[in-house]
Amino acid sequence: MGANILVAHGGGPTAVINSSLQGVIEAARASGKVDKIYAARFGAEGLLKDDLMDLTDVSSATVSLLSQTPASAIGSCRRKIEQVDYPTLMECFRKYKIDCFFYNGGNDSMDTCNKINIMAQKEKLDLKVIGIPKTMDNDLAVTDHCPGFGSAARYAAINAVELALDASALPIHVVVLELMGRNAGWVTAASALGEKLTNCPMLTYLPEILVDTDKMLSDIEKEFAGGKGLLVTVSEGIKDLDGKPLADTGIVDGFGHKVPGGTAQAVSDLIMKKLNIKSRAEKPGLLGRTSIAYASDIDREEAYAVGKYAVDSALVGKSGYMVSIDAERKPKYSYKLSLVELSKVANVEKIFPKEWIIGGNKISGEFADYCLPLIGGNLPEFAILRK
Amino acid sequence: MGANILVAHGGGPTAVINSSLQGVIEAARASGKVDKIYAARFGAEGLLKDDLMDLTDVSSATVSLLSQTPASAIGSCRRKIEQVDYPTLMECFRKYKIDCFFYNGGNDSMDTCNKINIMAQKEKLDLKVIGIPKTMDNDLAVTDHCPGFGSAARYAAINAVELALDASALPIHVVVLELMGRNAGWVTAASALGEKLTNCPMLTYLPEILVDTDKMLSDIEKEFAGGKGLLVTVSEGIKDLDGKPLADTGIVDGFGHKVPGGTAQAVSDLIMKKLNIKSRAEKPGLLGRTSIAYASDIDREEAYAVGKYAVDSALVGKSGYMVSIDAERKPKYSYKLSLVELSKVANVEKIFPKEWIIGGNKISGEFADYCLPLIGGNLPEFAILRK
Repeated sequence: MGANILVAHGGGPTAVINSSLQGVIEAARASGKVDKIYAARFGAEGLLKDDLMDLTDVSSATVSLLSQTPASAIGSCRRKIEQVDYPTLMECFRKYKIDCFFYNGGNDSMDTCNKINIMAQKEKLDLKVIGIPKTMDNDLAVTDHCPGFGSAARYAAINAVELALDASALPIHVVVLELMGRNAGWVTAASALGEKLTNCPMLTYLPEILVDTDKMLSDIEKEFAGGKGLLVTVSEGIKDLDGKPLADTGIVDGFGHKVPGGTAQAVSDLIMKKLNIKSRAEKPGLLGRTSIAYASDIDREEAYAVGKYAVDSALVGKSGYMVSIDAERKPKYSYKLSLVELSKVANVEKIFPKEWIIGGNKISGEFADYCLPLIGGNLPEFAILRK
Repeated sequence: MGANILVAHGGGPTAVINSSLQGVIEAARASGKVDKIYAARFGAEGLLKDDLMDLTDVSSATVSLLSQTPASAIGSCRRKIEQVDYPTLMECFRKYKIDCFFYNGGNDSMDTCNKINIMAQKEKLDLKVIGIPKTMDNDLAVTDHCPGFGSAARYAAINAVELALDASALPIHVVVLELMGRNAGWVTAASALGEKLTNCPMLTYLPEILVDTDKMLSDIEKEFAGGKGLLVTVSEGIKDLDGKPLADTGIVDGFGHKVPGGTAQAVSDLIMKKLNIKSRAEKPGLLGRTSIAYASDIDREEAYAVGKYAVDSALVGKSGYMVSIDAERKPKYSYKLSLVELSKVANVEKIFPKEWIIGGNKISGEFADYCLPLIGGNLPEFAILRK
């Protein structure tokens, strides 16, 4: 009899998390060693509520469509698994005779994954536990980068250039673009990759550096005065010199959490009020992680590969690891996969290197060297007729 | 000696307005009858400030890149041409010995185009004036639809489905999506085209119908309670039962139009405050008109064709017309072009038919029959694993 495997998603989806799921399913099928393929419906919620989906017999046509399907096809959640939940998890693994468990997520999920592995060992449960990395924020430690990031970065880079073309074609307003990333500015930094493809100046603000709003406004005023339009890109999580989020709605949700507002709108309002310059704010928000048209092919390929590698590793008896991507960029981009101990990545946050931020609002060429291969190389070319 | 032609853009760009420019340039070159090809830098601003660009010798490689370049490669503006400006325009036409003038824009631009034609006749200037239709809003009269709309509609349709997949994969919040369209709901209606491709319910609000916010909130509460997430799509210009914009910045643009603020954020705030349900607002804004990856191939083809048709018409002596698209949808989609008198389209606004709006927040199948061919047929397929 073959092994039974179980896969779950944790946290926010990416454009390629379903490619990892495809990698898991196809590797399991190809191995000839897997009996049942289960998925937790809505991540931890499904694990704790005995709500598993049996994917064993899903058609290969549907499985191959996963690479073109954004969000999580099995569902995810933001529920953090607490100490009190672990016995319920163990019960679930026993009931379905799970041999291998794969948790596809970010920092929190790797922490959970680690704890599940330790608990299973204590309970003498023969469970192989492997973490599959996923986060558009790129804030996972050890791995060179994280599946999901390349696609979010490609979205940011190309959309910023396209928006800059608009901002410079009708330079009647400052355009402020907000991108996701509460604590890590990786995605927002990618918006600057195409700065030189247009005539439009760009200013880029990441959460790693507190923003001096007076200087920000004087830089905006100066750049916009050039008459070529201006694109200001901000991470949703930027804070002022007092450490206060630029967008604070004052609204508290039903759980007592502060609801952050539109950071781009807040910056835009400042520009209109303090500089008397027309401004508009754009916030694609979740669209930055759901877009298939702007997803990165290499990111999709790697997402598939880490899913497959996780299954192959568990089936040869590995447990307690996350799949990590090791990358070479010279002479040309290549990657290979390896296993890293879960304890080394759990709850560690990799923020954007401050030395790659120049003068508070420009991104260094070192980041371009790092990031361009992950979005698939060069950006599209555009026709520039105006000098 | 050949003719000298001049092209100008008016109002907001679209994803395909540069394809119309490409059509103008390539038709002029192919005709063998054109000497100089001029473009007004920043639309009316360039015409009034004697700021023309000479595109006669732009390389054919650059011209062919126009179809992949969003925004306006020659620049546009929102300046309305006033009565007092017409003598300056006539001077510009005389100075550069312009034989044919093409104004590529929406309602306001067609009005200007009409007035220029009348003024030129009065002044015995031998000027052929042809309007090239352009507006993502699709609110131009007579023509079946307008270049720019198909791409904005394709953006809205696919992004809404992708976002709905995310909203149903992590159904912890209502997701509110704002799309452009101050008075006409055509683009927002397109967001509902893919409703049946996901499990996620959608509610769609257009500016053609005043919104009963109490009913809106109770509908949202009911749909979200189903546990499959919820996508609420709103036109930026929706108003409440008192006719007050849901988001009012108090700002007025150059045409005297009020500039609405973040409508999605306003709706999202209402959901959180009144229903105590977590909600988030997304507003791609200008990205909905700049995205090349989501542009419609047929829209791009038609945009090119109307530019070419304008040049061919002017070169055989036609003047005082806008190029109009006549479409057949059965047995399959086809279009042909014709000329319509400018006076019939100037300042007429074609709003979305109210009979295509069902119960205030659903879009009828008749709209799908109208719109699907314009975005290039069916939407992408996705893998749906959860029931």
